[in-house]
Amino acid sequence: MKDVQSYPDSRGIRIQKVGIKKVHIPLQILTKDGRYQNVTGIISLCADLTENARGTHMSRFMEIITRWSKKKISSKEVKIILEEVRNELETDRAQISIHFKYFMEKTSPVSHSKGFIDYDCLFYGLLEDDLFSFILGVKIPVQLVCPCSKEISREGAHNQRADINIKLEYYPDEFIWLEDLILDIESLGSSPVYPIIKREDEKYITEMSFGNPKFVEDVIRDVVEKSRKDDRVRWFQVECDSYESIHNHNAFAYQKEYIGKKSETGLIPYNHLNFMFR
Amino acid sequence: MKDVQSYPDSRGIRIQKVGIKKVHIPLQILTKDGRYQNVTGIISLCADLTENARGTHMSRFMEIITRWSKKKISSKEVKIILEEVRNELETDRAQISIHFKYFMEKTSPVSHSKGFIDYDCLFYGLLEDDLFSFILGVKIPVQLVCPCSKEISREGAHNQRADINIKLEYYPDEFIWLEDLILDIESLGSSPVYPIIKREDEKYITEMSFGNPKFVEDVIRDVVEKSRKDDRVRWFQVECDSYESIHNHNAFAYQKEYIGKKSETGLIPYNHLNFMFR
Amino acid sequence: MKDVQSYPDSRGIRIQKVGIKKVHIPLQILTKDGRYQNVTGIISLCADLTENARGTHMSRFMEIITRWSKKKISSKEVKIILEEVRNELETDRAQISIHFKYFMEKTSPVSHSKGFIDYDCLFYGLLEDDLFSFILGVKIPVQLVCPCSKEISREGAHNQRADINIKLEYYPDEFIWLEDLILDIESLGSSPVYPIIKREDEKYITEMSFGNPKFVEDVIRDVVEKSRKDDRVRWFQVECDSYESIHNHNAFAYQKEYIGKKSETGLIPYNHLNFMFR
Amino acid sequence: MKDVQSYPDSRGIRIQKVGIKKVHIPLQILTKDGRYQNVTGIISLCADLTENARGTHMSRFMEIITRWSKKKISSKEVKIILEEVRNELETDRAQISIHFKYFMEKTSPVSHSKGFIDYDCLFYGLLEDDLFSFILGVKIPVQLVCPCSKEISREGAHNQRADINIKLEYYPDEFIWLEDLILDIESLGSSPVYPIIKREDEKYITEMSFGNPKFVEDVIRDVVEKSRKDDRVRWFQVECDSYESIHNHNAFAYQKEYIGKKSETGLIPYNHLNFMFR
Repeated sequence: MKDVQSYPDSRGIRIQKVGIKKVHIPLQILTKDGRYQNVTGIISLCADLTENARGTHMSRFMEIITRWSKKKISSKEVKIILEEVRNELETDRAQISIHFKYFMEKTSPVSHSKGFIDYDCLFYGLLEDDLFSFILGVKIPVQLVCPCSKEISREGAHNQRADINIKLEYYPDEFIWLEDLILDIESLGSSPVYPIIKREDEKYITEMSFGNPKFVEDVIRDVVEKSRKDDRVRWFQVECDSYESIHNHNAFAYQKEYIGKKSETGLIPYNHLNFMFR
Repeated sequence: MKDVQSYPDSRGIRIQKVGIKKVHIPLQILTKDGRYQNVTGIISLCADLTENARGTHMSRFMEIITRWSKKKISSKEVKIILEEVRNELETDRAQISIHFKYFMEKTSPVSHSKGFIDYDCLFYGLLEDDLFSFILGVKIPVQLVCPCSKEISREGAHNQRADINIKLEYYPDEFIWLEDLILDIESLGSSPVYPIIKREDEKYITEMSFGNPKFVEDVIRDVVEKSRKDDRVRWFQVECDSYESIHNHNAFAYQKEYIGKKSETGLIPYNHLNFMFR
Repeated sequence: MKDVQSYPDSRGIRIQKVGIKKVHIPLQILTKDGRYQNVTGIISLCADLTENARGTHMSRFMEIITRWSKKKISSKEVKIILEEVRNELETDRAQISIHFKYFMEKTSPVSHSKGFIDYDCLFYGLLEDDLFSFILGVKIPVQLVCPCSKEISREGAHNQRADINIKLEYYPDEFIWLEDLILDIESLGSSPVYPIIKREDEKYITEMSFGNPKFVEDVIRDVVEKSRKDDRVRWFQVECDSYESIHNHNAFAYQKEYIGKKSETGLIPYNHLNFMFR
Repeated sequence: MKDVQSYPDSRGIRIQKVGIKKVHIPLQILTKDGRYQNVTGIISLCADLTENARGTHMSRFMEIITRWSKKKISSKEVKIILEEVRNELETDRAQISIHFKYFMEKTSPVSHSKGFIDYDCLFYGLLEDDLFSFILGVKIPVQLVCPCSKEISREGAHNQRADINIKLEYYPDEFIWLEDLILDIESLGSSPVYPIIKREDEKYITEMSFGNPKFVEDVIRDVVEKSRKDDRVRWFQVECDSYESIHNHNAFAYQKEYIGKKSETGLIPYNHLNFMFR
């Protein structure tokens, strides 16, 4: 049977990314307590394509993902997945993004009621020759109370749900757990959000957040201050997006910074990673 | 050339709805001041299909919509569109839904700053033989301040954006303008939302909404009370969906009621309309 | 501490649905082989609210869902969840919808390559007094080859992905597994879709589907014919939505039918269910 | 009244982007024939924030957008908008993205039936000090017929809708019309898509696209070849995303290239633009 993908191509154009997108698949994400969480992954997986072939072999991407559906995944496994892609597709570069909802149990502050909060998370990996970088991302909902509204009003203050969306690269000899990152960041809103709230919790949260009003700018500065001190982080980007209760649009603030306190050996050069990661 | 759609079908099954979906098209919506607003319509248009034909003629739906792209549309024109469908496709029943973003200028309460708020709107029409019903829908953003949080807390109260999503059928000898419906309903939240807010507006809105706390249940009851008295309305359904600032999920309340104070002559029977409209 | 929700309300309006929406939570769905599948559920859960109380107790809905996060769920458990809602909130009516992505292993026709296909599924339950109805829903992707395009063209035929979205109520003494429903319905397209396709599979699927061209109308009629004969089903609705490769919009067909071959004892009356289920 | 936003901030952190998002507003887009098209714009507008102030003045962004709602917009006006932002907010940098659906009339190849196709478009502008860059983006639906499926199968070939998503920067002394870009790019699929297709068109399109099979890799290489020769373009990125009819996931290919055949005077440095544009 003819193999049209392997036909030579006369245009002489090497392609940076060829692969599959919006693949939904069950996955197992390694958790901090040494177990794993079953999640529904949404995967994009791709490689570069030599100028000598007309097409890639799309089925191999799916075979690799399918094999990994039953194994625990963390940043270390992301690198192995990409090595398999590079070997089986005979390419120089491989790239993966895995989006998934991750759940953490959360206890309300007074009644100690327990429930789950869902977080939109991202594992991204890029492997080129022997260089590898891994990016961890998570979107964390918080409550924000407006400092201006509080200051100028006789009573009350408008407040709303906001998302803090952070993405960062940590060094390969470090490890940042989603669980820790979430706890670190959600403390930077006016208040965390909770799944189950009794009246005593509601009173506590209302008063606590009213005493801790924050602009999106304040959140970003607090994340920046914290992240600059974090030696495990090579660079980060963070956006705080606030669903303003007085508007039908959102307010936001954004920052991206290079920290770079450790050796870059073995890592994708920063500018190139910035170019490839979208 | 063979006309496969017109081939007879042996299964003896009449189909209730056959047509096109997710058609994006520029439209002109008639406005209360006698002018029109250019909108981007998202249309679903369909008809029933006799048991004697294998398929419908999809291109005719598009031809009809395309012709109407340049004409002003209100509930009256919706009926004419459906009559054209019935004639050109030789069917008994025709159905259309048009979703569009509609803009209204909105003035802030103190500084009188003017801007636009966008509303997700729906025109739905069903024509069967000589019976016709028209449903008007609109989703209206408001601010809601939580009465419980205010009552139990020493200061402050959690609040958030909420949507009031109303759909209603009005009698053919009546006319309800989107503009009027929006103003009527948005007054039932703790506060309307505004596009441009200066500090003096922010103070006013914060204090005003703090003095007018509402549960989603309160909003629904206020809409129900108002609508029951409205002789122009045959039936309505309303949902209030609140983006709780203390949770990562929403609270909601919903009601659907038949008012029916006028003659039903010429209208689709209520149970059948309820069955067809989704 | 004051309980504002329990305050009397003077408007005398009983509310049909009050509850929570867009709750994401890990769930365990019972599988046909007696095991379970971990899924990410998106839940809406609500009850009616007496005219004598100003608000419902939202936290109880979340407590009930959270308890059920660790137990296997099928239609039978959906009834138990709703009984708990009715008891703990002292209401007459309770309603739940659970949307989730469900995975089935799928083997390609020639190379027998195995992978996963994801299906968007729905469990819906309504309990009123002692009456209960359960609705099962699933959206099944298939390939459709256009019969008209094939017939009139010298060679080739346009084809595309389509979704068959079926919802049905089965009788309480019956049980329809998602796995069986999916296999039944996906056989009614021109071809199923597959996760992993080798060249020998691609040849087989292309030729097979080219030999089995179908309009959306054909799919609907085949589903209707099959469903009318199914004594387990009280009623069904089905839509086939085709992402036409020659257009930037979709073609669709839809049918809803009452079968009703068994006793209705213990079930929500059909018209009322139709009214409540959206 | 206190101006909390203007309070000094002790953290010493300058913020790269602060502004508003998901603002829906009616806009007028300049068309090639010298007229304009009314569209629904979705805007994100932001500026940097000095380390000396706690917050920005969000209302000024909305005032600027609102003023521009009634004026014709092209890349030249995007620069003026950003200059207004920089002046009124006293910042060094301003950034805007405008997403909108744009319609073009399209005539079917044989029956010459006319209708509209909608295209998702993007205007993006970045102004820093006196440097300015403008990015034009558009997503163009096409039909793709699979070369491999055609070659290996006795008859037929799977095909599907695909999107070609191109973004590019053109030099300030050049001008690329959306209309021209769309026509250029949509010719690179197996066939364009059409709004209204009669049987004679369907025969023509089926045979034409069957004679012109293309992988996503072929599309990307054709776009790359064409773009490399285009002196008006400083750099481009393109993705072709194919809604495979035989899978429940997509295949894609992607390329980003710097052309750079003209002077860079007055433009944002490429690496920095790449860093800021997301």
